[in-house]
Amino acid sequence: MLVHITKERLMHALQHVLKAVSVNHPIPILTGIHIEATAEGLILTGSHTSMSIEAWIQQDGTAVIVEAAGSIVVPARYFYEIVRKLDDGMIVIDGTESIVAAISTEGSSIRLCGMDADEYPKRNRSANAAATYRLRIESESLKSAIRQVATAASTSESRPVLTGVCMSYLGGSELRLTATDGIRLATCTIPVEIRGSMPQSAEFIVSSRSMLDMAGMLDGQGEPIELQASSDLIIFRTANLHIQLAPIEGTFPSTHSIIPRTYQSEITIETARLQHALERATVLAGDRIVRMTATREQLGIVSRTAAIGDGKECVPVAAMEGDEFSLSLNGKMLTDIVRCLAYTYVRLRYTGERGPIVLQPTDRDGEGDSSALFLLTPVRTAVQVN
Amino acid sequence: MLVHITKERLMHALQHVLKAVSVNHPIPILTGIHIEATAEGLILTGSHTSMSIEAWIQQDGTAVIVEAAGSIVVPARYFYEIVRKLDDGMIVIDGTESIVAAISTEGSSIRLCGMDADEYPKRNRSANAAATYRLRIESESLKSAIRQVATAASTSESRPVLTGVCMSYLGGSELRLTATDGIRLATCTIPVEIRGSMPQSAEFIVSSRSMLDMAGMLDGQGEPIELQASSDLIIFRTANLHIQLAPIEGTFPSTHSIIPRTYQSEITIETARLQHALERATVLAGDRIVRMTATREQLGIVSRTAAIGDGKECVPVAAMEGDEFSLSLNGKMLTDIVRCLAYTYVRLRYTGERGPIVLQPTDRDGEGDSSALFLLTPVRTAVQVN
Repeated sequence: MLVHITKERLMHALQHVLKAVSVNHPIPILTGIHIEATAEGLILTGSHTSMSIEAWIQQDGTAVIVEAAGSIVVPARYFYEIVRKLDDGMIVIDGTESIVAAISTEGSSIRLCGMDADEYPKRNRSANAAATYRLRIESESLKSAIRQVATAASTSESRPVLTGVCMSYLGGSELRLTATDGIRLATCTIPVEIRGSMPQSAEFIVSSRSMLDMAGMLDGQGEPIELQASSDLIIFRTANLHIQLAPIEGTFPSTHSIIPRTYQSEITIETARLQHALERATVLAGDRIVRMTATREQLGIVSRTAAIGDGKECVPVAAMEGDEFSLSLNGKMLTDIVRCLAYTYVRLRYTGERGPIVLQPTDRDGEGDSSALFLLTPVRTAVQVN
Repeated sequence: MLVHITKERLMHALQHVLKAVSVNHPIPILTGIHIEATAEGLILTGSHTSMSIEAWIQQDGTAVIVEAAGSIVVPARYFYEIVRKLDDGMIVIDGTESIVAAISTEGSSIRLCGMDADEYPKRNRSANAAATYRLRIESESLKSAIRQVATAASTSESRPVLTGVCMSYLGGSELRLTATDGIRLATCTIPVEIRGSMPQSAEFIVSSRSMLDMAGMLDGQGEPIELQASSDLIIFRTANLHIQLAPIEGTFPSTHSIIPRTYQSEITIETARLQHALERATVLAGDRIVRMTATREQLGIVSRTAAIGDGKECVPVAAMEGDEFSLSLNGKMLTDIVRCLAYTYVRLRYTGERGPIVLQPTDRDGEGDSSALFLLTPVRTAVQVN
């Protein structure tokens, strides 16, 4: 292997694949980055047990030149640190010596002990013929849906399916993402385009952390993403990125019946003002409860913590339907939800004393409701806080 | 106490005093910030055992208005978090209720449990009459000297004097700062102006961490600093900041005789190129040794670590006097020194096999040598690395 590549191109690809590399992984070969040079260009791969990321760098004769094909695995941490600290300009990577990567620029020459590329787990690069569905998704809508939904997933490993985001294709041209930890639930529907043969409806659960990592990689990528999903492999693919995820096994709880169809009251509030008020309230309340009281004019948020202090926030209500109401909620969980909302306003629906509160982002004019929906179960308090 | 103040002014002062507050301090009152409102304005104070910082905010009738004088101590973490999350604009702080600070803006009202201001340790605000010396220093030169010298101080508490920076006034109009951890030494002389009565020559040792914190606070402050030093209290003072430090007790090792007066060879190198080469070399070497070989054309830096790899860097030599030489050094310590250098070029002086290497920043034309000087003891290797 002998490759000439600019630092900029190499760093860009490295930053993506590093997201799948754990430098302390118990399997030594997975602490490395697999580099493959072919006539088409360079492919960098990083993997851990349930995720692998390939970044493709096209040979273009100026910024990327492959003089000799070949493969090597280099230790991720050292390779990244060295490349990051090299001067800008062309970098030569020479892997002709057995399992040693010689990295050189003008003035620097570094020989890094690598690992045998044959030991690196093989990946399936051919189109996934067995895919249950193949869909094409706009990168912006996928990214926004992941960021809104994934925070509702559980962080506890006690029920693995709840650490994931459930992707349900139910026919038609829509894909629904859902996550829940038992107390809150987030769901969002995004438009998709069908690719290849008519897909079957099915749902697969994917790690919410991997989904959030992927959303980060899609920043600045305008092109659509192809999703191939089957029961043993989920593939997200753009021209330069190829992300393979192992679905989480198990059955996602049925959430359809949980979402209330009717409500007693609804208020519409400016998202940013609600967010700032909640952030102040949770300084004192931490992850304890806050008491919310909605009137026609304003939403009052009261928090109180013994020996520390108490706070009262008033957020103007833009519109109200139904009666005034009050309820107690986990302040931190509500703040987490409100922080992710991508719309200027949010509708807050009260479904009664025991029902969950429902949040739906909206553009205020009533036409622009988001497809995202958030549920949060209230805390029932014996003594009222206010 | 009743005060109106803009969020911007309050945040600016808070960020300074927080540097002296440890939220986990075993003495509860020191986890707080002391707020005092007087006819002149507001004084915020943060303290820990060996340092106290006062930030003065002048009453100006528009951005800062004191309606009623008084004092209160508020919990630092909560107070800072709340103020940070308030909307921009005027904040009202009402301390009329006993040991409760009521903080309010439009839409928010927060009552924070405080502590009794009478329990807060008293500070001496009058000019330090017993000062051994009183000097006036340009803030830029003090800041630059602290940043260059303080990194050479020891981080181990086994010899407390070595964790400090020694400030020596030796008569005339110069103050010398010195720090050493036994392996490296940094010293820098800065011009000062004598204030008040003729000062006695004396040296005091001040915590290097507190000095670095102070250098951070001086960013953006153009005005000169007044230094009052006596054996029990060191005061640094500007119009808005008043920093009191307890000197470290003990005798600083005599460093005068350690600095070599003669040398066998000297090379001049561009600081940035040396820094980048060393940073790459230490990716592989970590805090192990690097081998440096100086010829008339270039300085070669070789690092080698078993099972990881090796690197060779070449940095062009701008000028050389004396013979070619080679020596082994702790790569990380040398990198730390070179990172702090404030000049474009650096002279590297070789004083023989057993003597320390001496670094002096310079402006290349020979006239512009910095007053800063750095010593690093070489590592004697049985087997040569290259």
